[in-house]
Amino acid sequence: MNHPSTLTITPVVRQRRRSLRGARLVPIALLLASGVGALADEGMWLPNRPPTKLLKEKYGFEPTAAWLEHVQKASVKIGASGSLVSPRGLILTNHHVGSGQLEKLSTPERNLMRDGFYARTPAEELKCADMEVRLLWTIEDVTDKVNAAAKPEMSAADAFSARRKRMSEIEQEAKDRTKLDCEIVTLYQGARYHLYSYRRYTDVRLVMAPEKSIAFFGGDNDNFEYPRYDLDMCFFRVYENDEPLKCEHYLKWSRAGAAENDLVLVAGHPGRTRRLNTLDHLRFLRDVDFPFNLRNAWRREVQLKTFVQRGAENARIGENDLFGTQNGRKAMTGGFGGLLDPVLMQRKASFEKDLRAAVMNNPQQQAQWGDAWDNIATALQQYREFHARYAVIRGALRSDLFRLAHTLVQLAAELPKPSRDRLREYRESELESVYLRLYSPAPIYDELEIDRLAGGLMLMAETLGGDDPTVAATLAGMSPRERAVQLVRGCTLKDVETRKKLAAGGAAAIAASDDPLIKLAAALDPEYRALRTRFEDTVEGVERANYAKVAAAMFARFGEDLYPDATGTLRLAFGPVKGYQEDSRDVPPFTNFAGLYQRWQERHGEEGFELPQRWVDGKSKLKLDTPYNFVCTADIIGGNSGSPVINTAGEVVGLIFDGNLQSLVWDIQFDERQGRAVAVDSRAIIEALRKIYDAGALADELTGAGR
Amino acid sequence: MNHPSTLTITPVVRQRRRSLRGARLVPIALLLASGVGALADEGMWLPNRPPTKLLKEKYGFEPTAAWLEHVQKASVKIGASGSLVSPRGLILTNHHVGSGQLEKLSTPERNLMRDGFYARTPAEELKCADMEVRLLWTIEDVTDKVNAAAKPEMSAADAFSARRKRMSEIEQEAKDRTKLDCEIVTLYQGARYHLYSYRRYTDVRLVMAPEKSIAFFGGDNDNFEYPRYDLDMCFFRVYENDEPLKCEHYLKWSRAGAAENDLVLVAGHPGRTRRLNTLDHLRFLRDVDFPFNLRNAWRREVQLKTFVQRGAENARIGENDLFGTQNGRKAMTGGFGGLLDPVLMQRKASFEKDLRAAVMNNPQQQAQWGDAWDNIATALQQYREFHARYAVIRGALRSDLFRLAHTLVQLAAELPKPSRDRLREYRESELESVYLRLYSPAPIYDELEIDRLAGGLMLMAETLGGDDPTVAATLAGMSPRERAVQLVRGCTLKDVETRKKLAAGGAAAIAASDDPLIKLAAALDPEYRALRTRFEDTVEGVERANYAKVAAAMFARFGEDLYPDATGTLRLAFGPVKGYQEDSRDVPPFTNFAGLYQRWQERHGEEGFELPQRWVDGKSKLKLDTPYNFVCTADIIGGNSGSPVINTAGEVVGLIFDGNLQSLVWDIQFDERQGRAVAVDSRAIIEALRKIYDAGALADELTGAGR
Repeated sequence: MNHPSTLTITPVVRQRRRSLRGARLVPIALLLASGVGALADEGMWLPNRPPTKLLKEKYGFEPTAAWLEHVQKASVKIGASGSLVSPRGLILTNHHVGSGQLEKLSTPERNLMRDGFYARTPAEELKCADMEVRLLWTIEDVTDKVNAAAKPEMSAADAFSARRKRMSEIEQEAKDRTKLDCEIVTLYQGARYHLYSYRRYTDVRLVMAPEKSIAFFGGDNDNFEYPRYDLDMCFFRVYENDEPLKCEHYLKWSRAGAAENDLVLVAGHPGRTRRLNTLDHLRFLRDVDFPFNLRNAWRREVQLKTFVQRGAENARIGENDLFGTQNGRKAMTGGFGGLLDPVLMQRKASFEKDLRAAVMNNPQQQAQWGDAWDNIATALQQYREFHARYAVIRGALRSDLFRLAHTLVQLAAELPKPSRDRLREYRESELESVYLRLYSPAPIYDELEIDRLAGGLMLMAETLGGDDPTVAATLAGMSPRERAVQLVRGCTLKDVETRKKLAAGGAAAIAASDDPLIKLAAALDPEYRALRTRFEDTVEGVERANYAKVAAAMFARFGEDLYPDATGTLRLAFGPVKGYQEDSRDVPPFTNFAGLYQRWQERHGEEGFELPQRWVDGKSKLKLDTPYNFVCTADIIGGNSGSPVINTAGEVVGLIFDGNLQSLVWDIQFDERQGRAVAVDSRAIIEALRKIYDAGALADELTGAGR
Repeated sequence: MNHPSTLTITPVVRQRRRSLRGARLVPIALLLASGVGALADEGMWLPNRPPTKLLKEKYGFEPTAAWLEHVQKASVKIGASGSLVSPRGLILTNHHVGSGQLEKLSTPERNLMRDGFYARTPAEELKCADMEVRLLWTIEDVTDKVNAAAKPEMSAADAFSARRKRMSEIEQEAKDRTKLDCEIVTLYQGARYHLYSYRRYTDVRLVMAPEKSIAFFGGDNDNFEYPRYDLDMCFFRVYENDEPLKCEHYLKWSRAGAAENDLVLVAGHPGRTRRLNTLDHLRFLRDVDFPFNLRNAWRREVQLKTFVQRGAENARIGENDLFGTQNGRKAMTGGFGGLLDPVLMQRKASFEKDLRAAVMNNPQQQAQWGDAWDNIATALQQYREFHARYAVIRGALRSDLFRLAHTLVQLAAELPKPSRDRLREYRESELESVYLRLYSPAPIYDELEIDRLAGGLMLMAETLGGDDPTVAATLAGMSPRERAVQLVRGCTLKDVETRKKLAAGGAAAIAASDDPLIKLAAALDPEYRALRTRFEDTVEGVERANYAKVAAAMFARFGEDLYPDATGTLRLAFGPVKGYQEDSRDVPPFTNFAGLYQRWQERHGEEGFELPQRWVDGKSKLKLDTPYNFVCTADIIGGNSGSPVINTAGEVVGLIFDGNLQSLVWDIQFDERQGRAVAVDSRAIIEALRKIYDAGALADELTGAGR
């Protein structure tokens, strides 16, 4: 389940290597992480603060402002990441990024996940139910404006609230002025505020997807492993006024691809890292947050596995949930492993000890920032008391219908307020996205909804206890499964028109509704709001105020040329194509199609290793030594899925789709000794499109043939 | 994982229907459970207190003393349950009861789980590494002798300890006198103590097992479901002095089998029920015990699934663990569902309210027993504080090597003490079994051991926190997986001779050992003992003293003709062969071979639905309308696996192997509206042996042909 601390992206700054050389005391902890003495290929750099010096020093590459702007405007936020790859709005991303839409576009008769899809003509392209694409257009530093709202005499909670309101006002003003989608991003967990303005598109159509079995070849078994053999790609097209988007900025295709040791760059949207969380914060993650989330991943995986095993239709409607759960479980297991690794924790402890000593040795710094670490620890200590409760009240009932019901209940309460006073996700600048999801015609499956709700109700009871008043009221005298059946069978919200009517009717319509899920969402909402307020006041607000101090201490010591922790916004990473050693064995950077067929034969008949028939039949047509997947040291994390890998000429040489197992601790600390980003090679994409999918037109569009 | 409350089998008494008719107030709760007004087919009856009146009244069947003795002495305790079915020591049990031995007898080249096994001659029978078989020979009520050890002035903890010592003395005296294996069974959680004396055999050889894919056809998907199509059988033979055991008492085979509505009886070893746990005890199970155990089942299932997916050899060595975990998870899910069902809990609450009111209305009873319920609640409240800690210290490291190391460490500490002062599992009467397991030559697989230990270390860290001193000491500065690798690679205990030397060397040898697992077990043992003492003093002892009062109150109100909760010892259950209704659809009591092939075709190619080639090839040879699996209302639970189903003539008509989903709440309350025991039909066993397995000799031995 999604967990509240997704809200609290704690900022992490990272000193540049060069500044470290003269400063022996502090950075040993982090130097160790990346190999002493070498400049690391580390960093998820802000588009407006690129690592230009680092790139020049280590690789002799100096991206121009035009190069950077071009890459920025050709990158798309599409859930995770993607890029524009033709002048006609063609988007390249991962299959597992597009799979939610593939599932929504599927029916029992048309199984796009299983069979793949290719639109030979624009008319055949399939319009997605609720897909949203954003291009980052401008960035403005509004830190001073935001902080001006917080007065020195305010409590952390009040200051947090005042800044939130000011942020909404700034966003709204910018939106009115520019007509762009405007959103303030909190960087370094509160040290900086940048206003990001996006072009936004909602007419997105499916162009091409391969079969899931080749996109995710090796299944859960090979996920996060390397060598790999996955064609994890998917193509969409953005439309504007019912015409393909004419775009000035798109990435050209590299026919040559990348070679070993070539510098490559990755532009994408890493979701969250916690690299410079305080030591106590990491302990909280290790002892509270990760165990809780892992347990729920394990439970849900077993429940979903049971669900999909019940028959072919269950498998079809449940496989995307199952993939997401397994993928998250494997990623969290890696992250948790890092938190349980005493070496990583010791590095963190040393680093923090030295930084705090430096602050304490400077009376002015001590007065300004000295209490930051303890304040964060105290806040997290308090959070322990209601962490599990907030998590289940907020996220246990992860069903489409409950989400719709809760959105309707909250919309009715929020819309009458001025935008700045609303829950942040209902502020004016967010409403288009809210309605896109609320009125999505995507199919909703009763059986899956029942399974999700029954699992969620069981989780609530298990976490809060069977006699808890909220649990008792939620179960309403039934067992979890009985209650789930009753809620889903009685729910009217599968019908989009019903949702529209309820939304139009506002609070009165909600109060009058007999829909059991509306009633349940309304009953749970007060406790949800109370817990959220408690979280914002006692945890998030305190974190913001005090991580701003931690960041200030880091800036004072290492300078400001540091990247912040990932925030789900556009970042630039870099590094060479490069293999690694594992168990004293060389893992080469590239695989090829021959390796795919070899692995298929080795694991023939095993789960996750089925090869689509057209790949079985098409083997002889393929150039088998075509590079297929490759690894590089670029610093990525979940959210980077679908990121283009580009060469210094700005051409696509690959498509990020994974990190290896050793990269999973990058959540906490970067380490390039074995950790690698994993990508599909641009050459494999073209070869497969032409030889296997008979999709020459799409290949031509990518390579610019006849353009 | 195994959980401490397995130690505390709380007794449950059950009033006979007849006594209820006049006592309207109390038993409605339980009457409701079984259908008002009818005599229920309920009860796991003690062999020395059989339900003779009930059987006579409802079914007109009056088992004689000879009938009962014969069935008792033909029943075998073999992990779970089994029966002697020929005069030459042949044992019938379930495949999933024998599968641990099948795995131990397998190698990469000889996969008995996958391929099955049949010994055409005695010489081909395979001797099991560490299998133990017991026949219950005599029972003696020693309640007064045991209770005489506890003086009125003693605390509950002291009384508990004094009774424990007396029990060891009684057992030892009986063993010296009879040369039998003697064990006192605590019934009604402390109201009665019976001395059970067993004949014990350790030369047990594998005779026949079908392929796992037919024994467990339908896999996890169909487990606990009905209709079913499983040949879940396995045959062993007991040897004495290297000759097949000559047994006077064995069950004859019914060629006719049972028909719908025929009364059948089940003799087996139900492991644990909690039917008359107090309401607060059920709440504890619901809010603490079940959630904890379920979480560990989910985590372990996902970890094992990942393990077995890594390759064919992993699948072979890990599948038994995986089956056990999945089976336990599905059973617990059903039990947890019962605890979360407000209807079941309400029944319990009403029943308890009435019983307590009756006690409180009688001054003498009030003085004697009035505080029992609150005392139990208080003990469980205290248990909440260390439940998770005790569970992981006791059971997280479930690896063969750790178990061996811990046994060696404990043996060295316990053997020098007098038997009555030892930990109960090391008392003199238990030592033969201890050594059988300790010196078992069964294979131990490094990779599986590492996976088990890594998972266990992670569980410890997750439950106790990464900074916990025990966790830190256990991990010794490594990540869980690194530490697991170090422990297993460095361990010397795979070698049986090393174990024998260490055992012979006693405490000095243990102290001098450099084996990393010996050192770890020695380091963890003091905390384990401290927690165990705390548990026995503050929880188990209090439960014993107070459940004895609850039982006394029940005896006073309903008479003594009540069965106690399951204790893993021999019990007799009964009921007719009978279908049921589900979703307004009739589920008939029998399936047949034709249904097997039909289900195979429906689910062709899906996991768990593979049919062995000889079944595919042999279809035409089979009489397809042979009854295959059937259901009856006999009251069973986990531990009954392998129980013979017998007719009133004492002949085998079937073989219990499962209960349906609706029976899983029987842990808490019996309910025969839909709940059913599931068995293999005796006719299917003979048909399959003759037609599919070419095992005519074995079929002849069963049916007595030529005897």
